[in-house]
Amino acid sequence: MKKVLSLAIAAALVAPAAAMADATIFGKAHFIVENVDTTASTGATSVDAWGVDSIHSRIGVKGSEDLGNGLKALYHFEFKVNQDSGSGLGDRNQFIGLSGGFGTALLGTHDTPMKMSQGKFDQFGDLPNGDIANVMPGDDRVDNVIAYVSPAMGGFTFVGALVAGERPDLELDGLADHVSLAGLYSNGPIFASLAYNTYDLGTAVDADPTLLRGTFIWNGGMWQAGVMFNSLSLDLPGVDDPDSIGVSGNVKVGPGKIKLQYLMADSERAGISDVISGFTPNVAINNGVNFDLSTTPATARATDNEVTQISVGYEQALSKRTTWHAGYTMYEEDLTGKEVDALFAGLIHNF
Amino acid sequence: MKKVLSLAIAAALVAPAAAMADATIFGKAHFIVENVDTTASTGATSVDAWGVDSIHSRIGVKGSEDLGNGLKALYHFEFKVNQDSGSGLGDRNQFIGLSGGFGTALLGTHDTPMKMSQGKFDQFGDLPNGDIANVMPGDDRVDNVIAYVSPAMGGFTFVGALVAGERPDLELDGLADHVSLAGLYSNGPIFASLAYNTYDLGTAVDADPTLLRGTFIWNGGMWQAGVMFNSLSLDLPGVDDPDSIGVSGNVKVGPGKIKLQYLMADSERAGISDVISGFTPNVAINNGVNFDLSTTPATARATDNEVTQISVGYEQALSKRTTWHAGYTMYEEDLTGKEVDALFAGLIHNF
Amino acid sequence: MKKVLSLAIAAALVAPAAAMADATIFGKAHFIVENVDTTASTGATSVDAWGVDSIHSRIGVKGSEDLGNGLKALYHFEFKVNQDSGSGLGDRNQFIGLSGGFGTALLGTHDTPMKMSQGKFDQFGDLPNGDIANVMPGDDRVDNVIAYVSPAMGGFTFVGALVAGERPDLELDGLADHVSLAGLYSNGPIFASLAYNTYDLGTAVDADPTLLRGTFIWNGGMWQAGVMFNSLSLDLPGVDDPDSIGVSGNVKVGPGKIKLQYLMADSERAGISDVISGFTPNVAINNGVNFDLSTTPATARATDNEVTQISVGYEQALSKRTTWHAGYTMYEEDLTGKEVDALFAGLIHNF
Repeated sequence: MKKVLSLAIAAALVAPAAAMADATIFGKAHFIVENVDTTASTGATSVDAWGVDSIHSRIGVKGSEDLGNGLKALYHFEFKVNQDSGSGLGDRNQFIGLSGGFGTALLGTHDTPMKMSQGKFDQFGDLPNGDIANVMPGDDRVDNVIAYVSPAMGGFTFVGALVAGERPDLELDGLADHVSLAGLYSNGPIFASLAYNTYDLGTAVDADPTLLRGTFIWNGGMWQAGVMFNSLSLDLPGVDDPDSIGVSGNVKVGPGKIKLQYLMADSERAGISDVISGFTPNVAINNGVNFDLSTTPATARATDNEVTQISVGYEQALSKRTTWHAGYTMYEEDLTGKEVDALFAGLIHNF
Repeated sequence: MKKVLSLAIAAALVAPAAAMADATIFGKAHFIVENVDTTASTGATSVDAWGVDSIHSRIGVKGSEDLGNGLKALYHFEFKVNQDSGSGLGDRNQFIGLSGGFGTALLGTHDTPMKMSQGKFDQFGDLPNGDIANVMPGDDRVDNVIAYVSPAMGGFTFVGALVAGERPDLELDGLADHVSLAGLYSNGPIFASLAYNTYDLGTAVDADPTLLRGTFIWNGGMWQAGVMFNSLSLDLPGVDDPDSIGVSGNVKVGPGKIKLQYLMADSERAGISDVISGFTPNVAINNGVNFDLSTTPATARATDNEVTQISVGYEQALSKRTTWHAGYTMYEEDLTGKEVDALFAGLIHNF
Repeated sequence: MKKVLSLAIAAALVAPAAAMADATIFGKAHFIVENVDTTASTGATSVDAWGVDSIHSRIGVKGSEDLGNGLKALYHFEFKVNQDSGSGLGDRNQFIGLSGGFGTALLGTHDTPMKMSQGKFDQFGDLPNGDIANVMPGDDRVDNVIAYVSPAMGGFTFVGALVAGERPDLELDGLADHVSLAGLYSNGPIFASLAYNTYDLGTAVDADPTLLRGTFIWNGGMWQAGVMFNSLSLDLPGVDDPDSIGVSGNVKVGPGKIKLQYLMADSERAGISDVISGFTPNVAINNGVNFDLSTTPATARATDNEVTQISVGYEQALSKRTTWHAGYTMYEEDLTGKEVDALFAGLIHNF
């Protein structure tokens, strides 16, 4: 025991946990050069600027351990590299879990099943101009989540997440103030998914939104084509439910592929912040679902603000882990007259 | 030299330090689901809420190098995973050191010897409701520390730390404005320790607190029982010195163990913030010793606020590195009427 | 495809990127004990304080991948360990790049070529009192950089960086609002470099500064001697261009070496913040080039504030990766009367 103590003390001081193998470092480096031309509203002067930016570059540590009886423990800590801000790291998916014959169960921070249900639809994911999240709701990463992923059964997988609100001040005090469910199906060239979200907004606003997303992708080998729709239902008198729809695709050309994407919505981000005016800016419900909320939803805007986002691009793999790409995105709002034209070229390395 | 230069330049640009082996990644993933029922004070409405939370999850990098002649260099950078806040990482123990026949000497941020002296007393460590730090003073991690750990001699180990105040504005400008010393003894089933802290609070308040902690643990193999006391001395006229005492234990039952813990104090955290009123909130002395201070200590409260914290739980190892646990903690203050009831279940994975 | 989907879904959930080898962890642990005696200005009371501090301790992850045809992809994410502040990590060099026969090209955050051109001139680099950056301008790390490093040709290497301003509000909207160029030559005992910076300060101030730095180092094996000058040109009527000059050297003595450094400037940091008064504090141009700016440069100070920084020290390697050092730095401003005396001893471990 003497030896044990001295070791224990030394360990407490210099080594909180003995080196226990198999932590894996992973991440993604993605930087672009871009030119963005922005006109804030009808009649405003356009601002044209160049930039060099990290595009959700990330690093993480993860690992797993076989517990016997087909059971596995796993952990995953992923961080955003805040390259441009000087503030070190931000948070991405971070959780602990158990997996086995029953599937996988998780606790922590994770993308919602709805976000996961998009599969490979987004041809311009992560790009500040280009990502579907600019136009479509439901691409959320949430804290305080209990998630479950079923095993694949005949090509079918179910994913569900309960999200605790942790805002008792708004009477959001349950384990399932926000729920996200998704069914995914994959068979040969087909990928199809349907996802459904419910949101309790507590005492902030009595709108009880629900969100439905459908995605269908056909992968023909030399080409891919996909369609996605989102339908948001708001329990607000006199307010239309905003919808959004998008098509995307790519086709192999030479050593790379040409990418296309067209998204359209009744209003930006399918209208959450647009439809509900008088909102408290940046009130985050469920720690991560960024619903802008109002206590006076009656003042909802009568007119839709139709949004269009069109992107074209080219990308070419330099190896399994390294890709370069270039492209152009045009974003327009018909009511406000906002317009963004973005040209970009970048390099991606996964590790 | 030509080659050397080009290499040097390339290195400066792409590789500040050549890969030099043996950095070890370590950490701990700990998440719980909890239900917490809080009554802020006598007569207040209780708030009951569910949550999913990271419990001091952490990652770190550490390593050591043999310098010859029995000397070793070591480093340790450990960070808290701020999963719930979106702010990336916070700080835990971070230091550089030398170890050899003389023991180990460190510079940086570290748990105080008093914190280290608790051994395995705390059955509910880290838990927001359950950790002894809710009731007992002295569980501090401090910046600006010079620490020393002796080799074990006949079961006895000495640990000492000098902490620089780095607050010359408060006339805390020495290397030992805060001192923490501990002697630990381990022999067969016995673990015993005594720790002593002095604090200079500079011109903020002339109370010159000292803190004494004793811990005794008997580990009988199938069961463990421990007792701890803390005695704080304050040089404030008319103010009683707050004490705290606790007992804890566990007993093997089936594949796991049942845990019990009972803590009692004259006032919360042994009364620092309670005894000294008119304090400046969150004035951190010694960068980490969170003494709430006052320039008018004369207004100290006459009445004690007796605090009780009782926890029961069960934990079961699923492997050497993975453990699940569940439990309940009750916290009460008799003067304010504050009451907290917490139910929790969690999963821990060390790596 | 069924299997692929279930794997893809599982991967999306628990493993954003398959473990893809060869990420290298690197870093530096550097802590000192120091005593600093500061007199803020003529007649002020001196403040004398001890401290224990991390000196730009850092950790990072980097790697590279062979793309074939002599081409290589590389990434580098380096973070400052904010040990003393509790805020986790800050940013250092972070970039993605391609290297090949043409040299190396980078996107991200990086030291400027001018900073790189100092070679091993600075005998007291990183030290809060001692680093040449206290006196000399041009030691910058910048965001939004496109950098290029040529291959070494006959001992000669060229390094260039274009820095995007990303401040369209100040009409800094190009890719080269700040430019830094350096030529480095190394042959036998000789290291010589010349670097040149241009800064566009947009609408903030019409001074169009340029900075020229020359460095010459002779490494005689048992000793090293170096000289560096910086010349800043400001297009401001009635304002002298501030210059700075320094000499440094070291000589082997016993198992270690004695280090000397003498720096002198017309005004602190060669006078940027001194020459241009009425400035807006901490306006960072080019995200990292900390030019303090004024819209009323006409009030520039007539009198120089001559700065002297003298350091002596000793350092001894305990291994290839571990070094201890001790030293003294004296800093003086003749106009303001500011004076700093710093004694320090520290331990460095590279990994």
